[in-house]
Amino acid sequence: MMQTLKNDRYLRALLRQPVDSTPVWMMRQAGRYLPEYRETRTKAGDFMALCQNPELACEVTLQPLRRYALDAAILFSDILTIPDAMGLGLSFGTGEGPKFAKTIANQRDVTHLPIPDPESELRYVMDAVRTIKRELHQSVPLIGFSGSPWTLATYMVEGGSSKQFSRIKQMMYTDPTVLHGLLEKLATSVTQYVNAQIEAGADAIMIFDTWGGVLAHQCYLDFSLQYMARIVEGIHRQYQGKQIPVTLFTKGGGQWLEAIAATGCDAIGLDWTVNLSDARQRVGHQVALQGNMDPAVLYASDEVIRENVARILGEFGQGSGHVFNLGHGITPEVNPDRVSTFINAVHEYSPKYHV
Amino acid sequence: MMQTLKNDRYLRALLRQPVDSTPVWMMRQAGRYLPEYRETRTKAGDFMALCQNPELACEVTLQPLRRYALDAAILFSDILTIPDAMGLGLSFGTGEGPKFAKTIANQRDVTHLPIPDPESELRYVMDAVRTIKRELHQSVPLIGFSGSPWTLATYMVEGGSSKQFSRIKQMMYTDPTVLHGLLEKLATSVTQYVNAQIEAGADAIMIFDTWGGVLAHQCYLDFSLQYMARIVEGIHRQYQGKQIPVTLFTKGGGQWLEAIAATGCDAIGLDWTVNLSDARQRVGHQVALQGNMDPAVLYASDEVIRENVARILGEFGQGSGHVFNLGHGITPEVNPDRVSTFINAVHEYSPKYHV
Repeated sequence: MMQTLKNDRYLRALLRQPVDSTPVWMMRQAGRYLPEYRETRTKAGDFMALCQNPELACEVTLQPLRRYALDAAILFSDILTIPDAMGLGLSFGTGEGPKFAKTIANQRDVTHLPIPDPESELRYVMDAVRTIKRELHQSVPLIGFSGSPWTLATYMVEGGSSKQFSRIKQMMYTDPTVLHGLLEKLATSVTQYVNAQIEAGADAIMIFDTWGGVLAHQCYLDFSLQYMARIVEGIHRQYQGKQIPVTLFTKGGGQWLEAIAATGCDAIGLDWTVNLSDARQRVGHQVALQGNMDPAVLYASDEVIRENVARILGEFGQGSGHVFNLGHGITPEVNPDRVSTFINAVHEYSPKYHV
Repeated sequence: MMQTLKNDRYLRALLRQPVDSTPVWMMRQAGRYLPEYRETRTKAGDFMALCQNPELACEVTLQPLRRYALDAAILFSDILTIPDAMGLGLSFGTGEGPKFAKTIANQRDVTHLPIPDPESELRYVMDAVRTIKRELHQSVPLIGFSGSPWTLATYMVEGGSSKQFSRIKQMMYTDPTVLHGLLEKLATSVTQYVNAQIEAGADAIMIFDTWGGVLAHQCYLDFSLQYMARIVEGIHRQYQGKQIPVTLFTKGGGQWLEAIAATGCDAIGLDWTVNLSDARQRVGHQVALQGNMDPAVLYASDEVIRENVARILGEFGQGSGHVFNLGHGITPEVNPDRVSTFINAVHEYSPKYHV
């Protein structure tokens, strides 16, 4: 029930209901910039062990909330849990990105790919959601999330991170049917996965389309957005009397906001290249907007951080419908004291936009 | 003199004058996908040795023109020749990106940075232009180029390629005066450099802003576009009776086309994320458009390549003002036969848009 949350600004802003100040959270807020995170991660062993231990995943989820007046918690997990549960064998080498032992190359691979049951193969995620939800004591909402089908597919076909996306683009241009088959399975799986998170207690859902921005316009519509739209349709938008808002975030998607809004999502995440005032004019009558300070602003002085917060609040302007965030995840080099400056500035400067 | 060129389609299209078919060339058309390029590069020793040898630079410039019916040649060189001539010590490790021995960190470094004389410290580039121009025998125009001030500055401050651009963004947000000082020197230097290329025989100029797309909207205007606008103003737009068209290409700049067109450039280069039809509606009354097939289409079959060429020609539609190109450089893995299919398709399908 929304009314049982002590602080529901984040949910209200996503639904464009009145708020007293602009809510703020940070993508990757539980992360390496925090010494207490690095300590817990060392204790866990490696990154996946941390994701798979509900108590420790809960601990790192709550760490940033102890330091900063954040308006939402986000489940600590990885976007690649689904392909891992599909049997591709995820690992993280030291100082390297993710690697899959198996990759998807053809129709046969797609056909044999199982759709994991969230409460069995991904039970550790649901347990983390339940643990975090309990430990939050209804202080702020808990955001559940998943990678988008396209973004997950890039890792599954490339075998890890990529710069050129040669393999998946080759598949897209030469064997679109195979890729569509993979994306359909992923859309089904993501929908079940985020619905299970909602059943476990998540108050809102965010879909991260980290690599949608590498696609040509029409390919983005056909291979990424279409499948996110299916997820938006399939998500429990109402659950046990709660309205569950859904945010879609395509990094590099600033040219496609109208199409993203047309999926029926509640909010669009914006990277820092987008002018928030333009974005509001384009789609603000349909959806809320999340973003969009350049994470690199957090390398600057307190004064510069405050100026940028004030500027971005001014760009959105008067009224509800804005969730303040960075335009991408916070980076490991940031000094945690600068984050205080950032979060406090949003709370200090935003009430005048809500009178 | 334009009339002395046997094929001036490329120049005419940039000036939005009537043409019989849509001109086509490829960014990085002299490159590693060609076996003859790899052979010449081996002969030269390393990459910079190839750039610095006018005869061999001419040889690799002409190689793609022997294979394909391209409507323009582009000087074979590197965007980092200017910072190298400024004394930063450029090198390319095997299989690695560029590295600078010295980097720019503060006002003192900027103050001490010399502005190179193109005809002495960059004489090898001008000699290459003169050699290529002679060997082209007026068959097609020769494109001269430079990196944009912002793009050059990223390498000079980071010391090489970057993913996060932490150092230059830290400088931008904390010491903007230092960065503006650097960008001013670079704008002056780039203007002198491309003007010397024009004096040596270049028929058109392209400015590559490879990293403008990593900037927030206002930062793009202040730290990248402003300095490209100065270059557009300072370039010899008329030289010895020839009109010299200037193309600006910001990768990831699709949101900012109106601002780019307002610099007074003749054409905008588009990456593959932009819908060409939308782009023409937005700025096609002011500038020509270059682009924008996803380079990854060249991994696909002849049929798919032809379909994509036909689609992109249709997106631009009737009339002059379109230079066909890829949305970014051709990649080393492409089969040279696929390139024939691509170039021939442009010549085969485009005449109907020019009747």
